[in-house]
Amino acid sequence: MHHIPFFLNILKFILEVLTSFCIDTEYIAWYIYDHGFRFQPLLLKQHLEGRSSSYEGVGRGGQMNGVIYETKSGVNPAVRLARTKSKKKHFVQQKVEVFRASHPVLSVLMWGANHSINDLSQVPVPVMLLPDDFKANTKIKVNNHLFNKGNLPSHFKFKEYCPQVFRNLRERFGIEDLDYQASLVRSPPVKEGKVHEERLLLTSYDRTLIIKQISSEEVADMHNILSEYHEHVVICHGSTMLPRFLGMYRVTVDSEDTYLIIMRNMFSHRLIVHRKYDLKGSLVSREASCKEKGKELPTYKDVDFRNNMQKVYVSDEEKEKIMEKLNRDVEFLVRLKIMDYSLLLGIHDVEREEEELDGSSSEEEEDRENGLPSSLPPVGSCSTSPEGIAGYMNSCKAFGPGEFDPLIDVYAIQSAAGAPQREVYFMGLIDVLTQYDAKKKAAHAAKTVKHGAGAEISTVHPEQYAKRFLEFITNIFA
Amino acid sequence: MHHIPFFLNILKFILEVLTSFCIDTEYIAWYIYDHGFRFQPLLLKQHLEGRSSSYEGVGRGGQMNGVIYETKSGVNPAVRLARTKSKKKHFVQQKVEVFRASHPVLSVLMWGANHSINDLSQVPVPVMLLPDDFKANTKIKVNNHLFNKGNLPSHFKFKEYCPQVFRNLRERFGIEDLDYQASLVRSPPVKEGKVHEERLLLTSYDRTLIIKQISSEEVADMHNILSEYHEHVVICHGSTMLPRFLGMYRVTVDSEDTYLIIMRNMFSHRLIVHRKYDLKGSLVSREASCKEKGKELPTYKDVDFRNNMQKVYVSDEEKEKIMEKLNRDVEFLVRLKIMDYSLLLGIHDVEREEEELDGSSSEEEEDRENGLPSSLPPVGSCSTSPEGIAGYMNSCKAFGPGEFDPLIDVYAIQSAAGAPQREVYFMGLIDVLTQYDAKKKAAHAAKTVKHGAGAEISTVHPEQYAKRFLEFITNIFA
Repeated sequence: MHHIPFFLNILKFILEVLTSFCIDTEYIAWYIYDHGFRFQPLLLKQHLEGRSSSYEGVGRGGQMNGVIYETKSGVNPAVRLARTKSKKKHFVQQKVEVFRASHPVLSVLMWGANHSINDLSQVPVPVMLLPDDFKANTKIKVNNHLFNKGNLPSHFKFKEYCPQVFRNLRERFGIEDLDYQASLVRSPPVKEGKVHEERLLLTSYDRTLIIKQISSEEVADMHNILSEYHEHVVICHGSTMLPRFLGMYRVTVDSEDTYLIIMRNMFSHRLIVHRKYDLKGSLVSREASCKEKGKELPTYKDVDFRNNMQKVYVSDEEKEKIMEKLNRDVEFLVRLKIMDYSLLLGIHDVEREEEELDGSSSEEEEDRENGLPSSLPPVGSCSTSPEGIAGYMNSCKAFGPGEFDPLIDVYAIQSAAGAPQREVYFMGLIDVLTQYDAKKKAAHAAKTVKHGAGAEISTVHPEQYAKRFLEFITNIFA
Repeated sequence: MHHIPFFLNILKFILEVLTSFCIDTEYIAWYIYDHGFRFQPLLLKQHLEGRSSSYEGVGRGGQMNGVIYETKSGVNPAVRLARTKSKKKHFVQQKVEVFRASHPVLSVLMWGANHSINDLSQVPVPVMLLPDDFKANTKIKVNNHLFNKGNLPSHFKFKEYCPQVFRNLRERFGIEDLDYQASLVRSPPVKEGKVHEERLLLTSYDRTLIIKQISSEEVADMHNILSEYHEHVVICHGSTMLPRFLGMYRVTVDSEDTYLIIMRNMFSHRLIVHRKYDLKGSLVSREASCKEKGKELPTYKDVDFRNNMQKVYVSDEEKEKIMEKLNRDVEFLVRLKIMDYSLLLGIHDVEREEEELDGSSSEEEEDRENGLPSSLPPVGSCSTSPEGIAGYMNSCKAFGPGEFDPLIDVYAIQSAAGAPQREVYFMGLIDVLTQYDAKKKAAHAAKTVKHGAGAEISTVHPEQYAKRFLEFITNIFA
């Protein structure tokens, strides 16, 4: 037995030599597997791809005792005994995720999103989407009697709109269904800011998704544009500044319908936004109110942008890329007679962040300000389960100030090297569900009367709106 | 690079030396893990416990190319690039299990069982079962519009009775919910035998579960006895010859209700039953009909048992264990005024099996005769998913003729060493839902008239029934 350290040292040496040759480590791993150490290559792969950082979570202490090994030559009798006895024990502690949220609508949303993704995984992906898929829906009605009363309403309904279309959109936006599910379901969504609005506006617990309550009219609008929207996403290969719509649901609790749309968060799941603008390209009534300005993170508008001498410092190359995307997206919106959309611009101030990090001894400050609970939910504590869209979250410590993963912070753009400000910008188009219709015409008439026909007004025709919008946005860059 | 085979040989040698020391292989595995080969110990454990034999299924060819490794010292830049690019690809091919069965009721059952287990995993396990849990149910109603039409009815309902109670029973019978789910859902259940009966009687695709259609009256009966049944299972620690009830559901398709109960299969999932008896302890009208005897596997009865000079050759110790269990179970049935149950006895003839195996060049014969499709579904092709209750299925090749895993073939008993016949017996109590009630009284009166008060008749009082039954069963042993 005292030879063992010696052989382990040789083993270490051999492994180092083999690795240092930069040869196919995969080969080595299979080799080891073949020689009695039956690891799971596929699971290893998942692990390596950042999906199961359970190593830390599982710990090498407590649960390790249960790990049983087998050599290829046969099962160790003691192991066999242990296996027989423990066969029916849970290996991975079963994670009970209870859909208990502050609001029954949210509990049902979590239940529904979980159900929906589970259910969809049993439904084949169609070779291509057909017109019927854009009219499809699935409704489910649940009645629990003396069952699970503590966590969910006893009676509720959940409706999912166009399941195949949104599944396809998620795929085109590079989001795996299991991650989407985890992001929505693992922990309850949280209120975005401290605003008490009539309508729900939340982010998923990992801040990668926005859950927005919409009206039944907006659900109809979504149906009207969904086919063209989908086509647009296909053509631009998912590279768009439009909202990334990922799911649309109706939740019914106490006979009351709540319509919800799920979108990617345009802001970062990790970097704090220090300043925020909603830009439409009009200077009429486009200034944040005093009340708004008093908020912690006010939504500034076009006039404020001009008054603040705000600029977006990105490289010419980046600007070109942005404007190209924007032109294509706005063209799409004009074609659908959509207007009144805004460019949402969030600015992360890297230097301010650094100062604050220096000021505070720990990272708690960041988390607190970020609105994140200071101790994150134990992401990845369950070894094989997906970790949600921000699957890298645990590895984010590796990011320096102002750094981000463009696969997670999909709307983020870094300021140009040598810019006067070190900033990260988050830019995307919001409020794209307003179509130019009778109501708009009425508003148009009213405003014309008030400000005169020549004034810069916010309510115009879609083509005019787009032109003015693009002109304004072109000029926000330094 | 030409040094590599040399080092691999040393690696092999080292591994062999370390293993030959019979030291903690766990330690070696962690050691390797620590030195850059980040396998997943917990998943390894699952693998070793027979739950994911995906190694064969995944193959070392095609999918292996996707395996990415990481050394502890840091991420290889090429790997990092590959990861960045492929982050959003599916690592494990998503297994779409479509619930398309020969019968819409079965499709809905599969959907429902899948839904039920998914749903339950989100509901906390109660500290203890309460009376309400024995009256609980959960109903779900699905309406699909232009969605998933090919695989499921567009409108259906699924009701689960006493979800917490059956979950608890599954646990007490050592069945993990995910295995239960996989056994029911991974492939459609199959007809038991070729009988076209009015009521559904099926086994799960892996032959570990029985799916039996029951009447709404029997559902009520189950509710009546469930609390006592549960208590009995608790007291005897799951060691009972009673049916192991694992779930009870109602499936509604086209406004037609189908009630289904799920039980453990009393026969083996793997060993063929060559002879089968249904024993009640009465000799009146207890002989298989000529029509029955003409079947491939007739259900013989008490009279046939006597005429065939059939005996059960088990050791005295085994017999004692069986009779002890049986006494306890029958006592329970008497207390609940249940009667008319039978002992189901299946006999696997080891020598006959050996002859047939010798006769056929391959194992196909066995599979065919066994009613199993000659190519089993690719169990374990999805590395992390459970394989169902017969999780060892892939490893069953290691079993010799007449050998079985008592954790899977829970009702099996080996014949005694030196017995005139090498056999495996499967014994359990069936038809335990008949309570002595008004209907029985009527039948009792009728039979008394026909055969005279002293005749051995099948319809008696529960106590008499039990006494006669136990007397008969005591004497079936050699």
